[in-house]
Amino acid sequence: MTAFTYEKLAQDGAARRGVIHTPRGDIQTPAFMPVGTAATVKALYPEQVRSTGADIVLGNTYHLMLRPGAEEIAALGGLHKFMNWPYPILTDSGGFQVMSLSKLRKMTEEGVTFQSHIDGSRHLLTPERSIEIQCLLGSDIQMVLDECTPFPATHEEADRSMQLSLRWAARSKAAFEVQPHRKEGNALFGIVQGGVYPDLRAISAAGLIDVGFDGYAIGGLAVGEGQGEMLRILESTTPLLPEDRPRYLMGVGTPDDLVEAVSRGVDMFDCVMPTRNGRHGLAFTARGKVNLKNARHAADPRPLDAESSCPAARDYSRAYLHHLVKSEEMLGSMLVSWINVHYYQSLMAGMRAAIDSGGFDAFVTAFKAAQSGGDIEPI
Amino acid sequence: MTAFTYEKLAQDGAARRGVIHTPRGDIQTPAFMPVGTAATVKALYPEQVRSTGADIVLGNTYHLMLRPGAEEIAALGGLHKFMNWPYPILTDSGGFQVMSLSKLRKMTEEGVTFQSHIDGSRHLLTPERSIEIQCLLGSDIQMVLDECTPFPATHEEADRSMQLSLRWAARSKAAFEVQPHRKEGNALFGIVQGGVYPDLRAISAAGLIDVGFDGYAIGGLAVGEGQGEMLRILESTTPLLPEDRPRYLMGVGTPDDLVEAVSRGVDMFDCVMPTRNGRHGLAFTARGKVNLKNARHAADPRPLDAESSCPAARDYSRAYLHHLVKSEEMLGSMLVSWINVHYYQSLMAGMRAAIDSGGFDAFVTAFKAAQSGGDIEPI
Repeated sequence: MTAFTYEKLAQDGAARRGVIHTPRGDIQTPAFMPVGTAATVKALYPEQVRSTGADIVLGNTYHLMLRPGAEEIAALGGLHKFMNWPYPILTDSGGFQVMSLSKLRKMTEEGVTFQSHIDGSRHLLTPERSIEIQCLLGSDIQMVLDECTPFPATHEEADRSMQLSLRWAARSKAAFEVQPHRKEGNALFGIVQGGVYPDLRAISAAGLIDVGFDGYAIGGLAVGEGQGEMLRILESTTPLLPEDRPRYLMGVGTPDDLVEAVSRGVDMFDCVMPTRNGRHGLAFTARGKVNLKNARHAADPRPLDAESSCPAARDYSRAYLHHLVKSEEMLGSMLVSWINVHYYQSLMAGMRAAIDSGGFDAFVTAFKAAQSGGDIEPI
Repeated sequence: MTAFTYEKLAQDGAARRGVIHTPRGDIQTPAFMPVGTAATVKALYPEQVRSTGADIVLGNTYHLMLRPGAEEIAALGGLHKFMNWPYPILTDSGGFQVMSLSKLRKMTEEGVTFQSHIDGSRHLLTPERSIEIQCLLGSDIQMVLDECTPFPATHEEADRSMQLSLRWAARSKAAFEVQPHRKEGNALFGIVQGGVYPDLRAISAAGLIDVGFDGYAIGGLAVGEGQGEMLRILESTTPLLPEDRPRYLMGVGTPDDLVEAVSRGVDMFDCVMPTRNGRHGLAFTARGKVNLKNARHAADPRPLDAESSCPAARDYSRAYLHHLVKSEEMLGSMLVSWINVHYYQSLMAGMRAAIDSGGFDAFVTAFKAAQSGGDIEPI
């Protein structure tokens, strides 16, 4: 099997249950992709990431092109071998991090010139170079380079930005088709932009579909517009996307965001939230967020979740997790990141099962009720 | 089996092969104890520590009494339960860290008053309180409070200090015998002091044997006197210690130190070196130390040790380890600490097998030859 295909297995309302077939293995959707920024999902061994149920992880083109370098990773056999993760990998285009992390950016029609946040070295990222880098990394799902429209933006600004992204998307596709490093079954996703303006989102989606992509991402959300606005945009955008292609909401989000977005027809997600919060002692659980720094956990002998299949949630007391977090011990980050990635994967598995059985509405109701309790009660 | 006993299984020259029986399990000797300062062997899961072959870990009384507190750990069921390590634990007395980490120390015959390095709170550590704390923690092997004789020290200074430690050792023993929290099979070790002066070491050893302990540690070494001086002191001291009790060289050391000390009759060791160096990208291997920060590893696809049974040494390239260390990724600390603790345990297992078979001299020769190559050669 060498092709990249999306197969829809079930639908419940707008929520879709499917599987993406790739040469490196299947991705069960709705899927959450843990973020492996610098070729590592922070504070977790790759075997652990896999054992939580992750079918795919995300790698950041911006970080990897700067260190160790795309050509360097290619010479070492590609990103999968480099980071000891033989399953599918999606890479972003690098554009988002260029805008959020690098210095001295200059944007032209050709691309963006920037300085590395690591050593100040100067780089040019174009649609063609982004695709070349992603092919050098050996990425299974590659993203077109786009401009991340700032928020807020006027209709005119969002339009100009979306049109640039459309032209770059066409250049990305052309580059992808002639890339010597591309492997059979590698996929390229377009990214719908247009800010909070449904008419621009519609133009963007139609333009991308004209070019033709293996999947369609929705970008430029969760940048400050609020959950209500984000869901409104999703509601008007996902119906415009092809039924037979996966839909990926980039950089989102909280557990509640994921549930709401799945109910609006989204198939794929990535977010640093489970690992970043894990490093700061904030745990995601079926009953809501738990701030382990809080003093009321200091003498609590209970595990975070005695019913969990995650050893980190089951085999250590809240008092111990509190102690590790307060003491800034690495094991604290390791355990809470593990708990969080495991929780996110369990949530996705729960949604998949609910859609399979036609019980997604009931799932959402139960999820909201359990989460609304907020932080877990003290003894 | 509730008693604490040392059983000598074999001897080769002065090198001893034995087993310490404790209610929480056997400790194969010579043994290396990974250091779990704040109730965690840094950057490792307890299951990993166990799987490297560790029969026992060390906990630091100073750190644990300050955070989360001895009474707090006791209320949570003791240190073993707290840190999810059901096997034997040795705790030090706290004295060494009071001198090296705390502020505003005042030493009297009664004990030492100090300020916490964490929050500035004032504490008094006496021989009696140290034992009480160690019993509250539930430590299987407890250490007497002693004064760490500074180096260099004159004969007179070392004598005065050693005599104080002897008086404190007797008070520790008396406190241990009446401690309500003590469990059957808990052991108390004395600590031979006396600086670099063999006559003082002899007085210290005789005095401790008079009091009577379950094991005997050799303290105040590896503090700047150099390996030659340390081994000279070991040579004159270990013959003075009872044959039927374990001997523990505190805070030592490099792989070479361990081999040399075992060949002089030492049974137990602890050191932060494998984990601390692991966090700084310095790996211990059978062929010597490897500084993974070194640029010459950047393009090296080989694992650190393809023959190792440690996944971290076997399944990741040197280029990847280099990348993680340079990027200050937590996974770098996790993998290299794992490699190092695994190497230390393999070294101990190798020494045990060599003594069992009467081939310890050949083992030492082969060890020195392999290590003397220094850093692993580049491609």
